[in-house]
Amino acid sequence: MTRETRSTGKIEISPTVTVEDHDELSRVYTPGVAEAVERAAADRSALPRVTGIGNRILIVTDGSAILGLGDVGPQAGLPVMEGKSVLFKTLAGIDAWPLPVRSRNVDDLVRTIADVSVGVGGINLEDVAAPRCFELTRRLRDELDIPVFHDDQHGTAIVVLAALSNALRVVGKDLADVSVVVSGAGAAGSAVSRLLLDRGVRRLVVCDSSGALHTGRDLDGEKAWLAEHTNPDGVTGDLAACLEKADVLVGVSAPGIVDEDMLRSMNDAAVVFGLANPDPEFDPEVAREHAAVIATGRSDLPNQINNVLAFPGVFRGLLDSPVRAVDSVVMSAAAEAIASLVDAPGPEAIVPDVFDERLVDAVADAVGATAIGLSEETRERG
Amino acid sequence: MTRETRSTGKIEISPTVTVEDHDELSRVYTPGVAEAVERAAADRSALPRVTGIGNRILIVTDGSAILGLGDVGPQAGLPVMEGKSVLFKTLAGIDAWPLPVRSRNVDDLVRTIADVSVGVGGINLEDVAAPRCFELTRRLRDELDIPVFHDDQHGTAIVVLAALSNALRVVGKDLADVSVVVSGAGAAGSAVSRLLLDRGVRRLVVCDSSGALHTGRDLDGEKAWLAEHTNPDGVTGDLAACLEKADVLVGVSAPGIVDEDMLRSMNDAAVVFGLANPDPEFDPEVAREHAAVIATGRSDLPNQINNVLAFPGVFRGLLDSPVRAVDSVVMSAAAEAIASLVDAPGPEAIVPDVFDERLVDAVADAVGATAIGLSEETRERG
Repeated sequence: MTRETRSTGKIEISPTVTVEDHDELSRVYTPGVAEAVERAAADRSALPRVTGIGNRILIVTDGSAILGLGDVGPQAGLPVMEGKSVLFKTLAGIDAWPLPVRSRNVDDLVRTIADVSVGVGGINLEDVAAPRCFELTRRLRDELDIPVFHDDQHGTAIVVLAALSNALRVVGKDLADVSVVVSGAGAAGSAVSRLLLDRGVRRLVVCDSSGALHTGRDLDGEKAWLAEHTNPDGVTGDLAACLEKADVLVGVSAPGIVDEDMLRSMNDAAVVFGLANPDPEFDPEVAREHAAVIATGRSDLPNQINNVLAFPGVFRGLLDSPVRAVDSVVMSAAAEAIASLVDAPGPEAIVPDVFDERLVDAVADAVGATAIGLSEETRERG
Repeated sequence: MTRETRSTGKIEISPTVTVEDHDELSRVYTPGVAEAVERAAADRSALPRVTGIGNRILIVTDGSAILGLGDVGPQAGLPVMEGKSVLFKTLAGIDAWPLPVRSRNVDDLVRTIADVSVGVGGINLEDVAAPRCFELTRRLRDELDIPVFHDDQHGTAIVVLAALSNALRVVGKDLADVSVVVSGAGAAGSAVSRLLLDRGVRRLVVCDSSGALHTGRDLDGEKAWLAEHTNPDGVTGDLAACLEKADVLVGVSAPGIVDEDMLRSMNDAAVVFGLANPDPEFDPEVAREHAAVIATGRSDLPNQINNVLAFPGVFRGLLDSPVRAVDSVVMSAAAEAIASLVDAPGPEAIVPDVFDERLVDAVADAVGATAIGLSEETRERG
């Protein structure tokens, strides 16, 4: 007697048990559920055995940075979150519920998200604007004992590191030696820069719309931290100046801001990633003349750098292991797992296909393996 | 390539669209979702057409009154909420997500629930302790423009009114004339009493563990309101004293507190409902000697009074109509729809079967019909 769902969304809830007679009703609802409630009440560790909490996450947004559309509000973010939920379930078997949140200040967001976090095994933050997302992520990780992942930061950093690792193999350069310019100091630019620093990149300059971040600028928060920890040569110019003799461009900024002259000024065998939506920072046709490896976010071009490569497997690994902190150890392990699936890296083959059947398990296993040899305490703190 | 869900819960999320190639990926996720986001951002009324928001509700608990087990915490309530979600979907096609909330005071609960209410079409409060549930429901209804329903209050009141209507037909008595004793002044007792008063019951006495509520007692909040609006004869005794010459007992209190002498002291053709869990207020065997119509919450006895008779259809009707307020008009309409499905009311036939195929549509249509002839404004205010 199941009614047709009237949902026009991309997901629905499906019972895993039937309720077609009074016996089943008594088992599924009262009085049958009392036993499970008593077990969970007596021992919280029984929850994953008597409920679905261990396979559930919340996809949370405040709607402040939806796609390239900016601050369109939490409800307008629902189509994105539903699409993400479809990917979590289809690719990784994870039940991810879209939870738009009305609050806009960090204090209220932390309180609300912490309040509802008791029903799930992880939090996936989505489309939260910078710099708000930095404090929100830090405070949630301090307060919660479940994983907190901001895809725009951590998912992007993972896939960029994976793609860059293979791109450098193609051009025969090493992370420790290359000169890297990150265009964009938002959620993605910051997380990418932090992960690259952690991976041994020394010559790294981050540019925002005013040019290179350096300690001579009046900056605060995340940008101040980046200015202090990057740009060792104290470059002070605009993006064009920074790109001269650079080996790598990671564009996580805005479409079309890198012209042919800038590309021409880069070192030989340059690696250029243009991940702006809906169009890259550079014209891919033009870039082909001046760069050895080109990657974008576009599905109609080779080397699509898509966060779908990372988030399903990362959460599968987090939910199935004692790992709780999504730190540089976990992000590096996930990136290496993604990169390793490309059997023969080439100019047009630096990342695996998002539908590679090995992908989710490889990433999940790599994330879980970071727990080995480290006490849970350590891993959970991160 | 869908992975097996690892959920051990009674529900999972199912995609309604497939993602098996890059074209489908582009439609389901970026860049495809941008169009839906732009439509929703430009016109909020487009949300139900481009997302599943119109078919979704949240099942919210603070874990303060789970079943008969009391305050076991929000997580231990998950099995109950999952079971309820199964019933919402199976019986009414509604996607109901279990959302345990950590906060315990009303201010924090209101803020958190309001914060996440933007993603759904209704809120079903579950197992929230009295008297907290009264203020919580009132404040949420003031603040939110979507329906707020507390099953322990409103669901119970609806099914009790439905069952009592048919029971009085069986014994040939009228709501306006009968003497009714409600044992229990919690969420259910209060809501049942308010609805019965609204339906014309004049001789109504509410008893808590200290006896009859009357204006001579030092009471506040909901109990003070009940003392002022019930007990016109100023009865001051205990439950036994109240039951003398009573026509109807509605027990929503504790197992076994009504003995044979109390039942014997009631009027002829008495109607007795014992809805305490897991056992009724009276021994059904003994009650058979002294009452004309007996109902309990037990599935192994005739006349099971189960909230499942009400909540799926009520929310189906709310989601499919402009009705927003779950007021006495809506509750009465739902109760009449439930009662009307019993073709020939008898001592052991005062409520329909919970699996009656006509039930959900009948209740949903009755709820929706309350909008007719009343301006939306009026109905939404309630």
